[in-house]
Amino acid sequence: MQTDNLLRQVSFIKEIDKLKYIQRKTKLFNSDRNENDAEHSWHLAMMTIVLAEHSDKPIDVLKVLKMVLIHDIVEIDAGDIFLYDSVINHTNTDEELIAAKRIFGLLPSEQAEEFIAIWTEFEDGLTDEAKFAKSMDRFEPLLQNSSNNGGTWAEFNVPYEKVYEKKKAIKEGSTSIWNYAENLIDESVKKGILKKSTDQ
Amino acid sequence: MQTDNLLRQVSFIKEIDKLKYIQRKTKLFNSDRNENDAEHSWHLAMMTIVLAEHSDKPIDVLKVLKMVLIHDIVEIDAGDIFLYDSVINHTNTDEELIAAKRIFGLLPSEQAEEFIAIWTEFEDGLTDEAKFAKSMDRFEPLLQNSSNNGGTWAEFNVPYEKVYEKKKAIKEGSTSIWNYAENLIDESVKKGILKKSTDQ
Repeated sequence: MQTDNLLRQVSFIKEIDKLKYIQRKTKLFNSDRNENDAEHSWHLAMMTIVLAEHSDKPIDVLKVLKMVLIHDIVEIDAGDIFLYDSVINHTNTDEELIAAKRIFGLLPSEQAEEFIAIWTEFEDGLTDEAKFAKSMDRFEPLLQNSSNNGGTWAEFNVPYEKVYEKKKAIKEGSTSIWNYAENLIDESVKKGILKKSTDQ
Repeated sequence: MQTDNLLRQVSFIKEIDKLKYIQRKTKLFNSDRNENDAEHSWHLAMMTIVLAEHSDKPIDVLKVLKMVLIHDIVEIDAGDIFLYDSVINHTNTDEELIAAKRIFGLLPSEQAEEFIAIWTEFEDGLTDEAKFAKSMDRFEPLLQNSSNNGGTWAEFNVPYEKVYEKKKAIKEGSTSIWNYAENLIDESVKKGILKKSTDQ
């Protein structure tokens, strides 16, 4: 049984290597090189460890780590959807659920169920752990874009109002990180690297 | 105080972005594209979550995750040292300690101390958590090389005896993963993608 589990786990470990090929729209800090999903997931995990003390609610850090480490694995099949995509909703697509079942389904069944549950909890965003994980997921590209002269905001003409609307989710996880983030958004407007829709 | 901490933490979060530029010798699965340290660290974190049940001793999974997520951050300053390098010892170089102090030192002091302690514990390899973390660090490139017709073994003429000697560390963390790994090494010899030194 243990050997059978290990064989399934190794096939999963090999399969998820593909996450390293999924390019995000955002670029590395002060860079024009796109970030990939594996790098992004590692960075969110590091942010979770480093910033956990700022969560407004007590959180199970191990669970948040599991969430951020696996949250984009479905994109191996479903592809990366840009946060500001105006046609496709960013989350909860049918395609992502099918992907979750296929990829996590490579694992022994109990583990597969656990991973699908954690991924679903993240997507639903209702628990304190999911809220903090989503704060991290929104905060990283904000830091990146502000280091890159507006990054994807400038590249895809995303106005201040839309950015503010999406980034507000940070507040659900952490008031202090949101205060920092809101300030960074305001500064970006002042610097002219993020434009209000009335300016455009 | 909380704001001061957050500013220090954000500067650390930006600094560690550089891990994404540190190229390893090993390649992705079935690929000729080098893996970078951030991707590698994410993969080890996933392996830790997935394979924790195979640890011979009970382990604090959160601590192992912290170890594998941060274990290569010193390479931002010290560079990647190849496991089979015959001139420089792979671990515990003075340069790495200086790097740990500089990079983790960007964090608030209590957190800096915690990270340096975790990194040192990993390097020393004496606790059950460090042994399991090291198992993961040895197991990933074994899987990669065997998927890549010998990968770095073939590229750098690393013989079976040296591979076996280094990979044995897997046994310290998990007997069942070691059984699988030993079998994979034997198969690699049979396939001719890993050569005994007497053959060379």
